[in-house]
Amino acid sequence: MSEVPSIRLYVDAALAEGAVIECDRAQANYLLNVLRLNEGREIALFNGRDGEWRARVERQGRKSALLSLVAQLRPQEAGPDLHYLFAPLKKARLDYMVQKAVELGASRLTPVLTEYCQVERVNLERMRANAIEAAEQCGLISLPLIDSPVKLVDLIGEWDKNRSLVFCNEKHEISGPVADLEGLQGGKMAVLIGPEGGFSPQEALLLQSQEFVTSISLGPRIMRADTAAVAALSLVNAVLGDWRPAD
Amino acid sequence: MSEVPSIRLYVDAALAEGAVIECDRAQANYLLNVLRLNEGREIALFNGRDGEWRARVERQGRKSALLSLVAQLRPQEAGPDLHYLFAPLKKARLDYMVQKAVELGASRLTPVLTEYCQVERVNLERMRANAIEAAEQCGLISLPLIDSPVKLVDLIGEWDKNRSLVFCNEKHEISGPVADLEGLQGGKMAVLIGPEGGFSPQEALLLQSQEFVTSISLGPRIMRADTAAVAALSLVNAVLGDWRPAD
Repeated sequence: MSEVPSIRLYVDAALAEGAVIECDRAQANYLLNVLRLNEGREIALFNGRDGEWRARVERQGRKSALLSLVAQLRPQEAGPDLHYLFAPLKKARLDYMVQKAVELGASRLTPVLTEYCQVERVNLERMRANAIEAAEQCGLISLPLIDSPVKLVDLIGEWDKNRSLVFCNEKHEISGPVADLEGLQGGKMAVLIGPEGGFSPQEALLLQSQEFVTSISLGPRIMRADTAAVAALSLVNAVLGDWRPAD
Repeated sequence: MSEVPSIRLYVDAALAEGAVIECDRAQANYLLNVLRLNEGREIALFNGRDGEWRARVERQGRKSALLSLVAQLRPQEAGPDLHYLFAPLKKARLDYMVQKAVELGASRLTPVLTEYCQVERVNLERMRANAIEAAEQCGLISLPLIDSPVKLVDLIGEWDKNRSLVFCNEKHEISGPVADLEGLQGGKMAVLIGPEGGFSPQEALLLQSQEFVTSISLGPRIMRADTAAVAALSLVNAVLGDWRPAD
């Protein structure tokens, strides 16, 4: 068996032995005219549900292609159960943040509207495209759920109390995030990052008064929200998640 | 005394009580024509050496401005002694990585040329501009040293043995980066991130055979180099650096 193909594509269709999938136009153009793949060249496919598959490209004229599934490369596996909640940022930084969250294994992305939020409308299709791009490039076979924006008070009101929420609070004293996270049991986790202006005093109080919330500090320097996102998700993975050896 | 001014500028000039500094043309244009600051408006200045100062803007016609120093806001303080070494990336990702490293307190940035490196030439002026931008926006008063690119073998040959080098090795078994870093004493630290293709087997062997090198794994998912940068610098800050309470 040859190596895992370096070209990876996300597709919507079900993936199974013997299936033949018709590419959408954009993908056909990418494979045939951008990458100029030869007939019979193999690529990897995933859909977020059926694992990763080796598929053969079959050209159908200049503008369309079929993908014939050859064999499963990896079964679908559950990634971390790690929700990432964030005040939406402006375009390029939001793109970047979504890509990073996916690389760090976030299983669900929830835009949260807060008082100091500077962006109210979120392009969910664009978020999804960024998530797919990150998964394609980083060899992932899971894709996060993507939620519509939700107000912070509603989010807190409807919270699943069995899920720990890590609140990255710029005004929290420097207590050491590793020690603070070690106090948690792991299990279902979520990380919340506020907008560039932080949370309002009322919002911070609301969060701190919840039993499922653990406040952490990310040190003495102000960081942009997208930096804080990577920092906090990395710490949760390293202290509680799958960056540790399996028990 | 009023609040710390929200507009912050880096200047080259010495900062001291009573000093008057002439803006360069780009900064004068930014203050007068982009921000449209009124005469007498106060901003914050830093130069990486003399702390942070409150300064009053004095307009001199449409294209030039003087900055009169009013009072020191903060003395210069030593940030972390944390070097960040990295295989250079292409433009936008390098910009981003430099900004992130500065936000995470890196005191020195060293581009390292490796076998699988896809970029050989680095625009040091552009790196410096990105470092300044991050410092201006994130309230920092230190700026990192910026080195010319160096080959990995030369870097290792000339290494200060008193500085620990954290080697983020994609092929390292998942051993938990928190536990691996806790084995270090802290003190002078450096973090090394390779190119998107990782290190060659010879390079990895060279690194692993050095006593000052600690290999860590950043988990089971492939991450882009700029994501790994933020993850690794965050972990070092959190486990060994100034994200913990002072002793």
